Amino acid sequence: MEKSPERCAIGIDFGGTVVKMARVDEHGDIGARASFATAGLDGVDGWLDEVERHVAELLKDLPAGQEWRGIGVGVPGLVNYAKGFIYDLTNVPGWTAVPLAEKLAARFNQPARVDNDVNAMALGECTYGAGQAYQHAVFLTLGTGVGGGLLINNNLYRGAYSMAGEIGHVSIDMNGVSAPMGRGGVEQYVGNRQIVARALQALDEGRASSILERAGGQRDAVTPKVIAEAAEAGDALALEIFDFVADCLATMMASVAYLLQPQAFIIGGGVSAAGPVLFNPLRRHLNERLSEHFASRVVIKRAELGNDAGVIGAAALTFLE
Amino acid sequence: MEKSPERCAIGIDFGGTVVKMARVDEHGDIGARASFATAGLDGVDGWLDEVERHVAELLKDLPAGQEWRGIGVGVPGLVNYAKGFIYDLTNVPGWTAVPLAEKLAARFNQPARVDNDVNAMALGECTYGAGQAYQHAVFLTLGTGVGGGLLINNNLYRGAYSMAGEIGHVSIDMNGVSAPMGRGGVEQYVGNRQIVARALQALDEGRASSILERAGGQRDAVTPKVIAEAAEAGDALALEIFDFVADCLATMMASVAYLLQPQAFIIGGGVSAAGPVLFNPLRRHLNERLSEHFASRVVIKRAELGNDAGVIGAAALTFLE
Repeated sequence: MEKSPERCAIGIDFGGTVVKMARVDEHGDIGARASFATAGLDGVDGWLDEVERHVAELLKDLPAGQEWRGIGVGVPGLVNYAKGFIYDLTNVPGWTAVPLAEKLAARFNQPARVDNDVNAMALGECTYGAGQAYQHAVFLTLGTGVGGGLLINNNLYRGAYSMAGEIGHVSIDMNGVSAPMGRGGVEQYVGNRQIVARALQALDEGRASSILERAGGQRDAVTPKVIAEAAEAGDALALEIFDFVADCLATMMASVAYLLQPQAFIIGGGVSAAGPVLFNPLRRHLNERLSEHFASRVVIKRAELGNDAGVIGAAALTFLE
Repeated sequence: MEKSPERCAIGIDFGGTVVKMARVDEHGDIGARASFATAGLDGVDGWLDEVERHVAELLKDLPAGQEWRGIGVGVPGLVNYAKGFIYDLTNVPGWTAVPLAEKLAARFNQPARVDNDVNAMALGECTYGAGQAYQHAVFLTLGTGVGGGLLINNNLYRGAYSMAGEIGHVSIDMNGVSAPMGRGGVEQYVGNRQIVARALQALDEGRASSILERAGGQRDAVTPKVIAEAAEAGDALALEIFDFVADCLATMMASVAYLLQPQAFIIGGGVSAAGPVLFNPLRRHLNERLSEHFASRVVIKRAELGNDAGVIGAAALTFLE
């Protein structure tokens, strides 16, 4: 009897600066990688040409017994998942109202799926990473903003119109920072830039700290990573900043826990690389902000797939049906 | 050919002061009602005896062609729905760790379901009331606290451990009012008592208002209803109070909308009886706090079943399987 061939898919992580691609098998393992710069392409068709070129490359060394069976994309913006339709990509000009799944299916004659990037990452983590054990989980990615993906009854939940999970806009202060998305959204406090701004402001106010020294004396070399290193070394200001970031996140996570009671929060993204200086106060503040019934029943886990979550999850989108 | 009999069920709305019961048919129509005081019964068995007495009454005039086929209860506390197990009823002594569904099934030899009261109401509204058109909705009940029920993919969603929907604890201010459930929970601002306290404090500070006069000069006769009547009559302080209540609710609802993107919020409970003086500023503030993509896609509706939502929903729990 012949073994039925194993599927693989092309996963695309469409970032604001780099488009990452990978050939991914059904175990979530990456067989080959490619990438190209987002800027300088000739619109949607230019992007598709570039993708096509790399798809050919990625499939060159396809192992015997594997069959290419789909192409999935995670994009940085609002998407109608069912239709594979992009409403708008905030930071990529020329990508408004694009029926991308249709275009991909037509060009490659393969099942195509398009979702927002955070959902793709969440699916990657929940299928092959830190979320495998859970049926109900909330995936967070901490970076420029705060993204969210919801696993409900073992499926990604996208809400009524495919835009759910915009967890960075969950308010932690009704009179807080104003933004086009409302007031007091948690990402207005814990985004990359906000963390750095908080450190620089404290330094400007004369707080003693090793942060600037660690950044070679250069204000614009201060990053969350530098601040995390200072915190690890016991720098009081840096510890204070991560305690604040943790408490802001805990406020949002307590609200989410009371609302959805997930089994776990799975946390990825650049800022999560801070490790214990973030995760220790995060657990403590979440416990303070939840009743025992809820606190004892929710786990906080670090994401496991790192920068590969996007391409793996995008590929996984096509394994679902 | 004989018509198969129509089902009916006994629905029980277990309140802190009154237990309401009704015989409800599959159209959500009430055939008979009963009620008894919560206090003064001899524990769980005394409660069951009283329920049994009233069940007999409610079934006396059962129409020909209807068959009794289940008993459902909504209770004010934390419940494991799958097991029909009550962890604890906050305001009813003696109801800790009660396998109520099991006890009901044993006593009545009928399928029995136990859920928290807000979930029961949400199911009532979503099956027979304001939520019938929706597959994704959030039910809110405004009273002493703020309760929540989540309709996701046309089913009540109870979270990983059956405690989801505790929407009154969603924080609107990370440095706000402290309570055992955390800080800044929205019900710490918009619960019955908090609304009244806000009015009395403003009066104590010398604000001109018709509120006290409308309460017959009696501070302890000031209720959200009295304040709503004053607001309807144009009383500036009363309008200000409902504007604040609406903005607090809008903050929480914006967070929920960004997270879950429901089609609708369905709002019931005593405070919702205020009507337009609450709902008009609520819509305005929600629009201010949401991006156009979200604001234009979410409806706010008043609940339709009023005080019957609890018994109808409790009965509906047994129609599900």
